[in-house]
Amino acid sequence: MQIGLIGLGRMGGNIARRLIARGRHDLVVYGRNADAVEAPHQEGATAGSSLKDLVGRLAAPRTIWLMLPAGTVTEDHVSELGDLLGAGDTIIDGGNTFWQDDIRRAAELRKKSIHYVDVGTSGGVWGLERGYCMMIGGDKAIVDRLDPIFATLAPGIGLIPRTEGRDGRDPRVEQGYFHAGPSGAGHFVKMVHNGIEYGLMQAYGEGFDILKNANVEALPEQYRFDLDIPDIAEVWRRGSVISSWLLDLTASALARSEALESYSGFVEDSGEGRWTVNAAIEEAIPADVITAALYARFRSRRDHTFAEKVLSAMRHGFGGHTELPPSESVAQPKDRSTSS
Amino acid sequence: MQIGLIGLGRMGGNIARRLIARGRHDLVVYGRNADAVEAPHQEGATAGSSLKDLVGRLAAPRTIWLMLPAGTVTEDHVSELGDLLGAGDTIIDGGNTFWQDDIRRAAELRKKSIHYVDVGTSGGVWGLERGYCMMIGGDKAIVDRLDPIFATLAPGIGLIPRTEGRDGRDPRVEQGYFHAGPSGAGHFVKMVHNGIEYGLMQAYGEGFDILKNANVEALPEQYRFDLDIPDIAEVWRRGSVISSWLLDLTASALARSEALESYSGFVEDSGEGRWTVNAAIEEAIPADVITAALYARFRSRRDHTFAEKVLSAMRHGFGGHTELPPSESVAQPKDRSTSS
Amino acid sequence: MQIGLIGLGRMGGNIARRLIARGRHDLVVYGRNADAVEAPHQEGATAGSSLKDLVGRLAAPRTIWLMLPAGTVTEDHVSELGDLLGAGDTIIDGGNTFWQDDIRRAAELRKKSIHYVDVGTSGGVWGLERGYCMMIGGDKAIVDRLDPIFATLAPGIGLIPRTEGRDGRDPRVEQGYFHAGPSGAGHFVKMVHNGIEYGLMQAYGEGFDILKNANVEALPEQYRFDLDIPDIAEVWRRGSVISSWLLDLTASALARSEALESYSGFVEDSGEGRWTVNAAIEEAIPADVITAALYARFRSRRDHTFAEKVLSAMRHGFGGHTELPPSESVAQPKDRSTSS
Amino acid sequence: MQIGLIGLGRMGGNIARRLIARGRHDLVVYGRNADAVEAPHQEGATAGSSLKDLVGRLAAPRTIWLMLPAGTVTEDHVSELGDLLGAGDTIIDGGNTFWQDDIRRAAELRKKSIHYVDVGTSGGVWGLERGYCMMIGGDKAIVDRLDPIFATLAPGIGLIPRTEGRDGRDPRVEQGYFHAGPSGAGHFVKMVHNGIEYGLMQAYGEGFDILKNANVEALPEQYRFDLDIPDIAEVWRRGSVISSWLLDLTASALARSEALESYSGFVEDSGEGRWTVNAAIEEAIPADVITAALYARFRSRRDHTFAEKVLSAMRHGFGGHTELPPSESVAQPKDRSTSS
Repeated sequence: MQIGLIGLGRMGGNIARRLIARGRHDLVVYGRNADAVEAPHQEGATAGSSLKDLVGRLAAPRTIWLMLPAGTVTEDHVSELGDLLGAGDTIIDGGNTFWQDDIRRAAELRKKSIHYVDVGTSGGVWGLERGYCMMIGGDKAIVDRLDPIFATLAPGIGLIPRTEGRDGRDPRVEQGYFHAGPSGAGHFVKMVHNGIEYGLMQAYGEGFDILKNANVEALPEQYRFDLDIPDIAEVWRRGSVISSWLLDLTASALARSEALESYSGFVEDSGEGRWTVNAAIEEAIPADVITAALYARFRSRRDHTFAEKVLSAMRHGFGGHTELPPSESVAQPKDRSTSS
Repeated sequence: MQIGLIGLGRMGGNIARRLIARGRHDLVVYGRNADAVEAPHQEGATAGSSLKDLVGRLAAPRTIWLMLPAGTVTEDHVSELGDLLGAGDTIIDGGNTFWQDDIRRAAELRKKSIHYVDVGTSGGVWGLERGYCMMIGGDKAIVDRLDPIFATLAPGIGLIPRTEGRDGRDPRVEQGYFHAGPSGAGHFVKMVHNGIEYGLMQAYGEGFDILKNANVEALPEQYRFDLDIPDIAEVWRRGSVISSWLLDLTASALARSEALESYSGFVEDSGEGRWTVNAAIEEAIPADVITAALYARFRSRRDHTFAEKVLSAMRHGFGGHTELPPSESVAQPKDRSTSS
Repeated sequence: MQIGLIGLGRMGGNIARRLIARGRHDLVVYGRNADAVEAPHQEGATAGSSLKDLVGRLAAPRTIWLMLPAGTVTEDHVSELGDLLGAGDTIIDGGNTFWQDDIRRAAELRKKSIHYVDVGTSGGVWGLERGYCMMIGGDKAIVDRLDPIFATLAPGIGLIPRTEGRDGRDPRVEQGYFHAGPSGAGHFVKMVHNGIEYGLMQAYGEGFDILKNANVEALPEQYRFDLDIPDIAEVWRRGSVISSWLLDLTASALARSEALESYSGFVEDSGEGRWTVNAAIEEAIPADVITAALYARFRSRRDHTFAEKVLSAMRHGFGGHTELPPSESVAQPKDRSTSS
Repeated sequence: MQIGLIGLGRMGGNIARRLIARGRHDLVVYGRNADAVEAPHQEGATAGSSLKDLVGRLAAPRTIWLMLPAGTVTEDHVSELGDLLGAGDTIIDGGNTFWQDDIRRAAELRKKSIHYVDVGTSGGVWGLERGYCMMIGGDKAIVDRLDPIFATLAPGIGLIPRTEGRDGRDPRVEQGYFHAGPSGAGHFVKMVHNGIEYGLMQAYGEGFDILKNANVEALPEQYRFDLDIPDIAEVWRRGSVISSWLLDLTASALARSEALESYSGFVEDSGEGRWTVNAAIEEAIPADVITAALYARFRSRRDHTFAEKVLSAMRHGFGGHTELPPSESVAQPKDRSTSS
């Protein structure tokens, strides 16, 4: 299939490569960075010199996949393409766009009979090799027409055992992609996927933290363990209830560096976690774990919060407590004074 | 190896079968329920008629694996065996014992030169086929001597890819078992494993809840999705960042029953979650996610908490708010009155 | 001062009475419910028969205070008044409006030279007697002009001790009202006020829950207390660190009914809690407590969540666990089986 | 009444002064620090030179109030006094002792017919002037006999309005002290009191944090407020739903220093918060808010957690994400790249 691909970063570049190598698709690519175009060009892609040029190189009905940072960059490209494309053409947004933006865009483009498909794409830098899990929103007919693209990018059944009881259900799901619903549904499902991801990551993080600190000086009878964290991560990969791909990655990082010295612990969040919490609130769902995971990231990026200073001020106010130097061990309560 | 096995329930029965089928070990079994003895007996195990009888059938140094409900039942058996066994014999506790009980028991048995090994055993009802992930606490020499048992029960490397960078590390870990440290270390690591499990499960649970409720009547422009939950669980198994064994099980349950009608939602907790939180507190580790997951289970078992009545009473006190009938839709705030 | 007052519910009615009784203000009132007009009319207010009639009875520059349910009702009134009022007139929204709506409305009305003032009003049904705490957003000059209204509604210094170190600061604050900033600032501060309120309420609720359940059958040596909850609430009002007005209300409710039988425990939320969490997220502030308090309310309104069914399904999947009947006591782990 | 008082720190010294000044009690004091004895001595107390000497100066039946740091110090004093005192004498522990220690101690002392009374004492450094709120555990007859002590230390009714509906109830409660139940009950109630205190403090802290950060550079249209935090704290004291003594203290601290510069934000915890969470877990009560408040303190004392490094390592693993320098603004998601 002929596909225009815009955005050749970490994700876009790999998608281009997979589309060419596995699908023999006919790619026309464009990226802001001229160097980034080089690699796909080598592998057989045509390079457009501009959005307009890229559009001109595609035969109608055109299909253009955007793989750009969510937010303004994607928005601007969709907007510009809205002017360049014509009736029957399709824009696919494969990035991490906010699903309500999809709904708005789809409605606007529909006025020009341009189709819009939102694809939540999971797989990270491993997708090139493993394939991408895709959650797709948009009109069914269009999604069906684009099937060759998704089929190429998806991992396929591979070695992952089939789930019993799925006979009669859409077989594409087992290939690793599915049509979630109307516009926005793809990114909505991907958003929740990432919200879950936050929760999973934090659960592992807390567990390893507890293991790492199992040697408490003040409680030498009980907390006397110097545990081998890399070995624990590895052993859990094998037959335990909590084996997962995220654990695989953790085991791998720990095998390289037991103390993870190269990481400081400032953890970014990329939008989906926030949107998931917003959705939970609008649906009145108690999402304690996902939210706590998000907040742990917020906190990781602060030196101290104003909240903490307020606490210290109150403690000083009612009990005359003064703060202890942070250098002192924190595991045990410092102040068992009789006040408050 | 000759092994005594006490406890032939869901887990113990499977362990017996795996030890016989895969390891050709010589098993002497005992279970409270005479019927439970029948199956292992058929497969070649000798059946003891009592603890004492079982001990009598083993040649010194004896090895006895307990697979019993944690708490009083296990405690009583350890205590009784402490009287029946002699110097050089070994008790293995493969159940979900509280790790501080292990420390105490090991110290007591050591006085009689009886060895005590605590084994955190993960794998659930699937262990028979998949093998068990084992985390082992106790004296290294004894753990090494028992290696044939662990090697048989463990999953082995199988199809799970090896983690790079582990060369030179203990190869048993890749087989799915490892020596975590002195007495208690095995169950400590297993306890944290289960704490993580709580967090992972709740993260998935919340995510699916948000997906399930993505059709909000009061917000029809945005929350208009009727999502196919079984398909979502399935597609995430394939190439996504959040693929895991727990997700496999969820996909399987959803394939059988989309709405999970056969479950009411009362969720038990089995001790390890609580102990993990206690450990976090003693180590002063912020374990927000694991704790929230535990509390969600507590809450699932209550009709209403007294806390909630207190809230209602306060709201009535300051704002004259009266409670709305629960039958009304809950997704949107009911009371946007101007008070408080 | 001449004031138009629209909305004569629980809050609006009391505000009318306080404005007349304490401030000798000249009130023109209007409420959808004709009966509601009766009381203020008796006390000296003029009653308008419609919005238009009310506007006609006011001399320019007019001041109209809206005390209506936030959302559509208030929005519609602001919109209609925008057409009826003229340059120099002022609309005060004293309800629980979303602060971003204030920003929008103020900008729209400014085009017609109509002023808009947002007033977060706390005090509930007690405000008539105690006075209202007010947080005000809008142009300083207008807020200053309206001072006689705020001065009447505010509690005044009364018996509440002055805070040292406030010399030279705005004395109105000590009267119980203050100009928070530009449009939206009043409701923003009130929103956070309510977010804090959620957290405070939940903290008390949880504490009383722990006290109420201090008699645990399974742990009779330790948890053997039948505590007098009403007495505890009362004693804490007197000299303790956690004395507060919310505690006063709780003590009062408990004095009437020890078990709070008249409350079922379905707890509504009124918007501000949700918005506070949204604000926390947009500011990247970890607001764990306020959010947990909001979620506890969400959960209180559900029988069971889908999340909980997912947990049960997973537990059944890996451990063969079946749910226990909810009638069984929940305090202790039910299932210490050896699996998972 | 004749009272022995041991421990003359921040709390004990004030208790001595209040007992002498308000109750004309006959005090015999002892403190490790000879200087600390000086002040009460000046006001009329007799000073003992040792525990033994203090005991010798008291007439049977003796009453000794301990006001010492909880844990080893108090334990050692109780133990030593157990040897020095005789049948009919009473030890009062007014510190922040763990309630299960009370149960144990009371049982041990009962063998010698020595009474033990546990008193949870709230009021902090303000108790001298305001009086102390006391929650008392022990035998009713003994608690009644000690009433003159409690009556002197308690705040009395003062200006705090009476709660309606308490007629016929124990009038001591309104004075600010009450008999909670058997040994341990006093400290149990005090423990939960402090747990609630943690939750309240954190709720305020988070709220002020959100207010403090209401000026978000990336969202200038909405988050454009430079709020006056000291004024907000002050205005909420007057007529708002969230007025409280903790808020009074906060307003006071903010009036002295708007940015609370003298506090770094390392927040200690003193044991009761941890024990409250432990109790919640043993009772299976979801105590999300109190626990989150405790964890916020734990987190405040860490530079970075190992959990956070694990998160960073995972993010690097699946998405090639590298950490951003902490100096960059944290309010908005940094990484909206398309991966994961």
